[in-house]
Amino acid sequence: LNFSKNKELRAELFESRVIAGESRLTLEETGYLLERGRITLFEDEEELDLQKFLKRASSLIPNFELRFLVYKNIRDRGYHLKTGILDFRVYPRGTKPGGGESKYIIRVLSEREPMEITGLEKDILITKNLKKRLLYAIVDEEGDITYYEIKEKKMRGSLPSLSMDTNVKGDLLEERVIIWDPPFLNRLNEFWWFGRLTDEGRRLQLSFVESAYLIERRSLEVLDARGNILSLEEFIEAASAIESNFYRKYLIYRDLRDRRMVVKTGFKFGSHFRVYGEMPSENAFHSRYLIHLLTDEHAARLPEISRAVRLAHGVKKEMVFAMADESKVVRYVEISWVRL
Amino acid sequence: LNFSKNKELRAELFESRVIAGESRLTLEETGYLLERGRITLFEDEEELDLQKFLKRASSLIPNFELRFLVYKNIRDRGYHLKTGILDFRVYPRGTKPGGGESKYIIRVLSEREPMEITGLEKDILITKNLKKRLLYAIVDEEGDITYYEIKEKKMRGSLPSLSMDTNVKGDLLEERVIIWDPPFLNRLNEFWWFGRLTDEGRRLQLSFVESAYLIERRSLEVLDARGNILSLEEFIEAASAIESNFYRKYLIYRDLRDRRMVVKTGFKFGSHFRVYGEMPSENAFHSRYLIHLLTDEHAARLPEISRAVRLAHGVKKEMVFAMADESKVVRYVEISWVRL
Repeated sequence: LNFSKNKELRAELFESRVIAGESRLTLEETGYLLERGRITLFEDEEELDLQKFLKRASSLIPNFELRFLVYKNIRDRGYHLKTGILDFRVYPRGTKPGGGESKYIIRVLSEREPMEITGLEKDILITKNLKKRLLYAIVDEEGDITYYEIKEKKMRGSLPSLSMDTNVKGDLLEERVIIWDPPFLNRLNEFWWFGRLTDEGRRLQLSFVESAYLIERRSLEVLDARGNILSLEEFIEAASAIESNFYRKYLIYRDLRDRRMVVKTGFKFGSHFRVYGEMPSENAFHSRYLIHLLTDEHAARLPEISRAVRLAHGVKKEMVFAMADESKVVRYVEISWVRL
Repeated sequence: LNFSKNKELRAELFESRVIAGESRLTLEETGYLLERGRITLFEDEEELDLQKFLKRASSLIPNFELRFLVYKNIRDRGYHLKTGILDFRVYPRGTKPGGGESKYIIRVLSEREPMEITGLEKDILITKNLKKRLLYAIVDEEGDITYYEIKEKKMRGSLPSLSMDTNVKGDLLEERVIIWDPPFLNRLNEFWWFGRLTDEGRRLQLSFVESAYLIERRSLEVLDARGNILSLEEFIEAASAIESNFYRKYLIYRDLRDRRMVVKTGFKFGSHFRVYGEMPSENAFHSRYLIHLLTDEHAARLPEISRAVRLAHGVKKEMVFAMADESKVVRYVEISWVRL
């Protein structure tokens, strides 16, 4: 199609196909060209202006409205794009379909749709196999579009591996475990940043995930109110009674600790964890990652994802979502805000 | 009790009461004084050290662990406090109970507890009647404490009231309404910032809440795909099919618009709305408030509140939570992060 020569090409809508000369146009292309006055469109000899066409197209293919908004937005930013794979394939600036490789694969979503984890993982797999970058284009209720890049994330830290020769005892209070053994607790706190020292270093408060990890690694025995030692299963049960999500959260915690990272609560950032690749020092005091567990029930409401990503961006951290499946394999997905 | 004279006062635990000399101590006070070595504590002639006492106290009163952490934290910051009303009453620095008025009323919460809206409203009422400031002390899983101030919020803007003499028509597409009447849409957009102009100002996209408001105010008629005019009820039904929460969100939107504020989507901040007190200008372009609807189902998970408040703080906006009850009365509560 050479639009510079044919200023107003005539196109025809047959069922849901649009034919212009010898080319076939997608409905998004049709809308775009109509808006720019580059084509005239007919259906059964009736001319469809943009208003009529938008109503018609919305009834012909699901999600047309969203797709059209995103198509237009990407074209207006100077990119060429083609329908296909997920919703669109986008070519690097200056490259056209046929003249080079596409760079991004775009999925179009409404802010109102929940983001399904299985769908997310499929999309990652597809784009990974194609060696493309995956973007989600989220259309908000006012038709504004935010682009998020979705990436598999490898988490790896450089902490020494946990080696505690002693096995100390801790008391389970209501929501915490207290250790009263100063040399042990100082080592735990200093080399791996477990717990929180209080009372001028005379005792260490451990969170539930920290305690479970130390129990599982045979470095800690936790006593309940009656003085009985709790097995890992019993401890997890007790913790789960207080925090229903505890076990899944623990799977993520354990995985990150096993990857030699420092894992602390992310409460102040509204995430499950904040994570450091090494022990914080004066030069590198800030955590690099915020980790939030995605569960199937809570699925991912896009406004919540938006809030998390925006917050992480504001505090210069990477927002990573973690998922643990039945087999306890943990996967990490970084979601970041990008300007197209 | 004069601890400077009696360096190690003897105290006795009877059931859940602690008696030291002629005074009665709360369990939090007892823990605090024990930790500082200012008292020795006995129960049935057996001495209770801090470790034994903490276990004992946790079994005696619910929430002792959390209350003790907060008590200690506030004392360590140089304030006096007393048990009572919600959890504690805190006196201004330099003032002691008996020597002046308390300033804050503190409620102690674990990050794991959901924040119940009815409870929140009761707390606001209590502290309002007492003319005190209400703080929630949230204890995270590691025992760190964040203080939030909870305040009723009056929302009021200075927009001209909506007066559109014409009644234009809009097309309902899938998730938006499109208006094609340039003079009307320009006025709507310019004076009240409804919708989003696209296609070089030739059409206006309205969100569902905006459309519902204009329908209710008789400034707009929305046509469905078959060309039928939708009543307000029909429109709300159609919107609710796409967004289950729509009606409650609309109640908040309507209330804020009726209060002469500009209300736009807060999607990029992960909140329902961002709100301006007047039409943004070059000097005052940023929205002042983020508004998030709290519903009973979604109740308020504290980590989500934390995320919202932190985000709002980072972008210099006020985080306001809105609640609409059966009678459609909308109330606003500002939650902000405070340093005690």
